[in-house]
Amino acid sequence: MHPLAEKVLARDLRATARACRLVDDRAGDYAAILKDLFPHTGRAWVLGVTGNPGAGKSTLTDRLISVFRKQDRRVAVVAVDPTSPFTGGAILGDRIRMQAHFGDPDVFIRSLATRGALGGLSRSAVDVARVLDAWGADVVLVETVGVGQDELEITRTAHTTLVVAAPGMGDEVQAIKAGILECADVFAVNKADRDGADAAVRDLELMIALGGEVAKATGRARGHSAAALHARASAAPDPGGEPPAGPWVPAIARTVATRNEGVAALVEQLERHRAWLIGTEEGAARQEERLREAMHVQLRDALTDAAVAALGPTLDAAVHAVSRREVDPYTASERLVAAFRAGAGAPAPGAGA
Amino acid sequence: MHPLAEKVLARDLRATARACRLVDDRAGDYAAILKDLFPHTGRAWVLGVTGNPGAGKSTLTDRLISVFRKQDRRVAVVAVDPTSPFTGGAILGDRIRMQAHFGDPDVFIRSLATRGALGGLSRSAVDVARVLDAWGADVVLVETVGVGQDELEITRTAHTTLVVAAPGMGDEVQAIKAGILECADVFAVNKADRDGADAAVRDLELMIALGGEVAKATGRARGHSAAALHARASAAPDPGGEPPAGPWVPAIARTVATRNEGVAALVEQLERHRAWLIGTEEGAARQEERLREAMHVQLRDALTDAAVAALGPTLDAAVHAVSRREVDPYTASERLVAAFRAGAGAPAPGAGA
Repeated sequence: MHPLAEKVLARDLRATARACRLVDDRAGDYAAILKDLFPHTGRAWVLGVTGNPGAGKSTLTDRLISVFRKQDRRVAVVAVDPTSPFTGGAILGDRIRMQAHFGDPDVFIRSLATRGALGGLSRSAVDVARVLDAWGADVVLVETVGVGQDELEITRTAHTTLVVAAPGMGDEVQAIKAGILECADVFAVNKADRDGADAAVRDLELMIALGGEVAKATGRARGHSAAALHARASAAPDPGGEPPAGPWVPAIARTVATRNEGVAALVEQLERHRAWLIGTEEGAARQEERLREAMHVQLRDALTDAAVAALGPTLDAAVHAVSRREVDPYTASERLVAAFRAGAGAPAPGAGA
Repeated sequence: MHPLAEKVLARDLRATARACRLVDDRAGDYAAILKDLFPHTGRAWVLGVTGNPGAGKSTLTDRLISVFRKQDRRVAVVAVDPTSPFTGGAILGDRIRMQAHFGDPDVFIRSLATRGALGGLSRSAVDVARVLDAWGADVVLVETVGVGQDELEITRTAHTTLVVAAPGMGDEVQAIKAGILECADVFAVNKADRDGADAAVRDLELMIALGGEVAKATGRARGHSAAALHARASAAPDPGGEPPAGPWVPAIARTVATRNEGVAALVEQLERHRAWLIGTEEGAARQEERLREAMHVQLRDALTDAAVAALGPTLDAAVHAVSRREVDPYTASERLVAAFRAGAGAPAPGAGA
């Protein structure tokens, strides 16, 4: 076993930080470390927390950490913030967050950098979450901004996804509609003491119900009838009981994170979702579907890395040819794929150790 | 030449709409159409318009269309909105936009769907913009939400990128920091009649200046000194003169789109940037750099499509093996890449016509 992987399993904080950095940067022995750690993963609950800037994600994440710590669970946070590469996420001080947990050896916080134009952000998030799972996290909170395709990908790698919305941020519906509805397992309407909280809850209920109607019309599986939703909303939550049978109906909780209100009820909804995932057939099917998506992303990125490394000067030549309009980019990229498959840049037989 | 490509070049609106749909869906003869159209592209000015929900992007886009139409330029709009696939972007009526231009045959508006977990959104945006370039658009406006990795990719494919911010949306700096600063060529502080507009402008000036300081410290090329910025800000804009020499310093314009205020001055700044791109060495270098990035994305997506098609059942088997934890996902994906390169699923020699 790789010495760094051993140290991660021994819960060495510095080594774990180093392993996270290597994995995020795709540097050093990161691949060997990930392979060694994988058999020791699968225990953590990966909880995605997403929402637009200003919804209060960081404050709510902070509150969730406190709840989990009171339950004596080890917590890791992966903060995915596609900030400009040249700032490294540190500009103008918004990293002064979650300070309450500074110095707690059972809370591990890690920010990811962006990966540039070729993506890879979601791969980093998945891999760093796995390192922290192996480190012994009981809960891995993955925090992202809520708009954007890559962030959607990350959200889809979580077991349970919490979408944080807030009233008074303009159009709540627009603010959360961007592809996130079908990923959301639980909604928190944060800043629920503000004007517009009732409207935000109603909008969400409508969206969930409409999702059901649209699903019925199009034959897709997601979404829920308004009737089922209202039956559900009027029933008391039953966190200690059996996991809910049938498909998951997104839950809505009201919170005021700054005053720590509604957080316990929110956690109950999150735990209900976890019980559903573990205890029902539908939950197992969803887990498998998510794993399939993660493998597609993994494959896409592995292919890109291999091709860029293998093609080197051929790729440069193609860019120049397209730039001089000697070839169209579609034909050029077909030729690059063919060259890659034909073994361009592959190690010669017998080369290497 | 493909008949649909011919009709696009003949400016047939229905055929152009159909070509856009095929290209967005990767369906039918989309590849042949793109190849045929490529030699007829390169004339349009691709103008990215991005910003968070609520900043007033759509209203401002609408105003820009009016300005360009008064100049008798043909305008196309590619609205990239990563809405849930089951809504198709039509839910809850926010598509009731840009109605003022309905019926104008020289304004073509096209929404893109999301592409699911494997991305491809930016590829669709680039390709649809090319179709509209070939159709004869003088300006192609590509409108995206401003947070997210894939949206950043799209933004990087534009010639000129306009970032729309608005005061009173919580933390303006946080709202626009997400990787977008280094893509922004021009900022519009929209809703500039509201409280907080001065603060928003100051925040942006500070960010641009800080970008310069950080760039100096890290040796990276982007960003601008506060001194240069302030010299620049105090100078009168000179849209009719020579393109500015040296690196581009992001410009800031104040607008009230709902009242059509500041829009002409904003367009002048956008045109200045276009003149810089066309008329300076730095501009040419940036064009080449962006083309390289676009080719990387193109290659990544072409590889993924080819691999998913070629590997089929092998990919399914790998997902099941990982799901049963018989193999780690890293080893599994290495094996898939190797199988793809070794020709798994490739047409047998002599097969086909």
